[in-house]
Amino acid sequence: MRGWAGNILDINLTDGAIDVLPLDHEMARLFLGGRGLGARLLWDLVGPEVEPLSPENVLIFTTGPITASASQTSNRFNVSTKSPLTDTILHANSGGWWGMQFKRTGYDALIVRGRAEKPTLIEITAEGVSLQDATHLWGKTVFETTEALGQDRNKRNVLCIGPAGENLVRIAAIMNDKERSLARGGAGAVMGSKNLKAIVVEGTQKNQPADKEQFKFMLYETGKLLKASPLTSQALPEFGTAVVMNVVNEIGALPTRNFQQSQFEGADQISGETITDTILETNQACWACPITCTRITKTSSGKEGEGPEFESAWAFGAQCGIDDLDAITEANYLCNDLGLDTISMGNTIGCAMELAEKRLLHSDLRFGRADLLPGLISDTAYRQGLGNDLAEGSFRMAAKYGAPELSMTVKKLEMPAYDPRGMQGQGLVYATGNRGACHETGNMLGPEVLALPRLIDRFATQGKAGIVSVHQNSAAVIDSLVYCKFANMAVAEEFFARTLTAVTGETFTADDLMMVGERVWTLERLYNLREGFTKADDTLPDRLLNEPVAEGPSKGFTAQIPPMLEEYYAFRGWDKNGVPREKKLKELSLQFAIEVAE
Amino acid sequence: MRGWAGNILDINLTDGAIDVLPLDHEMARLFLGGRGLGARLLWDLVGPEVEPLSPENVLIFTTGPITASASQTSNRFNVSTKSPLTDTILHANSGGWWGMQFKRTGYDALIVRGRAEKPTLIEITAEGVSLQDATHLWGKTVFETTEALGQDRNKRNVLCIGPAGENLVRIAAIMNDKERSLARGGAGAVMGSKNLKAIVVEGTQKNQPADKEQFKFMLYETGKLLKASPLTSQALPEFGTAVVMNVVNEIGALPTRNFQQSQFEGADQISGETITDTILETNQACWACPITCTRITKTSSGKEGEGPEFESAWAFGAQCGIDDLDAITEANYLCNDLGLDTISMGNTIGCAMELAEKRLLHSDLRFGRADLLPGLISDTAYRQGLGNDLAEGSFRMAAKYGAPELSMTVKKLEMPAYDPRGMQGQGLVYATGNRGACHETGNMLGPEVLALPRLIDRFATQGKAGIVSVHQNSAAVIDSLVYCKFANMAVAEEFFARTLTAVTGETFTADDLMMVGERVWTLERLYNLREGFTKADDTLPDRLLNEPVAEGPSKGFTAQIPPMLEEYYAFRGWDKNGVPREKKLKELSLQFAIEVAE
Repeated sequence: MRGWAGNILDINLTDGAIDVLPLDHEMARLFLGGRGLGARLLWDLVGPEVEPLSPENVLIFTTGPITASASQTSNRFNVSTKSPLTDTILHANSGGWWGMQFKRTGYDALIVRGRAEKPTLIEITAEGVSLQDATHLWGKTVFETTEALGQDRNKRNVLCIGPAGENLVRIAAIMNDKERSLARGGAGAVMGSKNLKAIVVEGTQKNQPADKEQFKFMLYETGKLLKASPLTSQALPEFGTAVVMNVVNEIGALPTRNFQQSQFEGADQISGETITDTILETNQACWACPITCTRITKTSSGKEGEGPEFESAWAFGAQCGIDDLDAITEANYLCNDLGLDTISMGNTIGCAMELAEKRLLHSDLRFGRADLLPGLISDTAYRQGLGNDLAEGSFRMAAKYGAPELSMTVKKLEMPAYDPRGMQGQGLVYATGNRGACHETGNMLGPEVLALPRLIDRFATQGKAGIVSVHQNSAAVIDSLVYCKFANMAVAEEFFARTLTAVTGETFTADDLMMVGERVWTLERLYNLREGFTKADDTLPDRLLNEPVAEGPSKGFTAQIPPMLEEYYAFRGWDKNGVPREKKLKELSLQFAIEVAE
Repeated sequence: MRGWAGNILDINLTDGAIDVLPLDHEMARLFLGGRGLGARLLWDLVGPEVEPLSPENVLIFTTGPITASASQTSNRFNVSTKSPLTDTILHANSGGWWGMQFKRTGYDALIVRGRAEKPTLIEITAEGVSLQDATHLWGKTVFETTEALGQDRNKRNVLCIGPAGENLVRIAAIMNDKERSLARGGAGAVMGSKNLKAIVVEGTQKNQPADKEQFKFMLYETGKLLKASPLTSQALPEFGTAVVMNVVNEIGALPTRNFQQSQFEGADQISGETITDTILETNQACWACPITCTRITKTSSGKEGEGPEFESAWAFGAQCGIDDLDAITEANYLCNDLGLDTISMGNTIGCAMELAEKRLLHSDLRFGRADLLPGLISDTAYRQGLGNDLAEGSFRMAAKYGAPELSMTVKKLEMPAYDPRGMQGQGLVYATGNRGACHETGNMLGPEVLALPRLIDRFATQGKAGIVSVHQNSAAVIDSLVYCKFANMAVAEEFFARTLTAVTGETFTADDLMMVGERVWTLERLYNLREGFTKADDTLPDRLLNEPVAEGPSKGFTAQIPPMLEEYYAFRGWDKNGVPREKKLKELSLQFAIEVAE
């Protein structure tokens, strides 16, 4: 194959039908792959009448045109579905090896429809595609399942759910390569609802660049940039993603104790530096990646595993008022094994802690109670006791206890580790996120904190909308190629366009890529509008809008969404209600969705 | 010295007084040096009552805290004065060796006041500061003067004016190190009006970093980034700045024949690629710079010299409808020798060509007449014939012939090589430029064309104001440090902050630097307001606002200034008339200028 394999594998678990559909080339050029192609296919397959956990929902696994080409970070893949947590369109992506291996089986996408009668697994190898009984694996953890199915990094890769997905936990992840996850929005529960335990892939085909010389040159150029950037060549390898913990804390944007404060006195104890100094065994990389940000760690009790990433360290750390790095790390391991999204899990526990402290929830849960983490996580995966509430995510849980305003979510998705009161642009990213509060779809850490590429006043609101939109579009196209966003911290989209051209033999400019990003973002917006979402959903929790930060560098600030939102809609060519105008849809070749805009 | 020398040399040519003033450390921290310090000193020294070419105007030469530290590109310096071309505040900067050498004499700034009775030169060496008779040099060209004064690159450096400056040509440059120029806005005429022919410097002191280890580390980090970026490690060394000629032409943003078209059919013949293929002898670098973008060239008639840069190749090329690279290059040499700004010279000639073609000016001048260039340039420097009109700059000349609307200027400064109809953000940069239409104070080529760091729709207007403001602030602080903007294409402000910290031993963050940039920009704005400039001056020539591009990729577009301007004032915290609000001045520690805001 050259870029695209040209094939979509289409499996209906209800009747066991296995089909191969051709990939429409025009569609591929417009949406590339990954998140974009997933959104485009989902648009046709899953309408507003479909319940996320019903057999009518589908799971769409997608790779991109550069996947498995050996271009730096060309290992990632995407899953698209309707989310059982947010009811919005959902995309989630993961690194590791599985995406590359799946691509090598000769498919660009895998659509999984229906519901199997009994636990099932899909195996895709050179011998063909088969559905197999997975009854013996049902109930097993992620680590057990991965091992039982013969995971072998560069040859045979396992993607599966753990007990959380089986039990339809709304914050369940899909896991791959043991400890990598398609984490956010509950795709694991969708997989569970289909009785699908695992997908095993063994590929033999190659993604061979159309222009080998140019491809080699781009490998060299990209490698140079990754080596030169202190972020990708030093900070991430040495300290992992949690290298930003102290930075974000120092500026007063590290949400603490369910966003009651924006600085955590224990930040340093859970920082990337401390991880490296204390629990780090070694760092590792995903396939074809020189960055090596993965942390392989060992806690003082001798447990070993991957993590914690910045977000996980924050979620079980500052968000829960916990500075015990061992406890946080083991909570991370446990989420990986049970198949849970660490951000949503930690954020939801933090919310429960506040509910308990405010006596709205009868429990001995309190901020700082690291000892309770393992039990809570396990109970969530198995829906036992309070875990059955936690399994519903923060919003449904807080609503049940009469205080939905204590849920730190947007569109019911738990917020990541940045306090919008100290980073106004990040607030707009959260408020307008198509899958809810998300840090992977336009993160403003670069411009608002790290001065990369240029520092923008983090408290300013005017003029932010344009920058946020460009970041959102950029993230959308990177998720569609699929590249890793850390690579993009050192390598501009221009280089991705040139590599894509070399791989496919078709010319793509940076302009084309940014247009794909805008197209994908707008289609996701239209999907949510079709689901009944409105402007009223583009907001933040009341606490962030109305409670000024009490202490520290962000003291006195609240998140200023309405003025930014007005600018944002205008910048995007949407009307005052956030509905894309027809003209914009035509510009983006999204005419097929025009009824929603009308 | 560590960063700042702490001394300002103050020379009054009228009475020959030579003083040394202490540099106020608080002022240095707030404005750093270069353009910022120049603006701050000029604010106090030259009020609205002063005519630019009168003895009451001053010339302020400034270096920055990193100058001569050997940090990459730490060779640049700045001149500030009131412009005889625009009547605005003027800053102009140059690379080479002179700035570094001046810093090594132990001064951060040199203020030149008054007017000498006869031609004079200033010599600053370890022996002291002296004023010397320069009658024997008056009338000599730049190359002759530089040689006569014993230019020796790493030891003794000459800055001077040529005949153009002596003859008070409003587009006269100050030249240094023979072919480097402080080009724009007519600082050469101010120097001429003072009877000051040259300033010769020989320095012996060192700018020694406070933290040597950290400084060495930053040298290494910065070097890595400069080596990794294809722009600074390959495109600029190999093809020079004119590497962007074909790119800007292809997108329909290369102003042609006095901005009547936005694509030039002869672009490739005057491009960086063609320069390298035909006339390039070798490339060279300024002091302490690894980029080596200087072109040393030789035309087919055997003439040798430096250039042309992109802007010069455009000004005598596309702007005049000329595709004869030899003629363009020799026009560039001639401007260097006579001491003229190539952008304003070429742009003004293009305007004269249109006036002649439209029969408003009686002349055989026509677009494409490369043969007439040497005579026109020489006549301008000596104010002979039509040259006496050209010497007034495009606006005054076009007004004299009854067609000021044919002058492609903002605030009377000739526009550089980007058509705002094809790059809307660039239009806003031009319209709001404090020294008039300028490409060095917030250039949008990166985001609007090169996808560096991120591609932004070049036709979009909404949301541009924020990005433009950030770029303007960034350029202002880079000009104050003083670094080279090409370095900034590969190295973020964050790194400059860390180097500055290492050099001075005082902590500066990227945040601090961006604040300096905003402070400098705002002070320049206030200076112009004090001079009587208003919102009405923040505009573009009628042609760009009302004549849509007729052909090519920018077809149908005009420049949309009013909506962007409204956003721009709001983003900057200025009122609807473009006057900075008191609150903003307090935020920026500009209280001393508060009467203007009131």
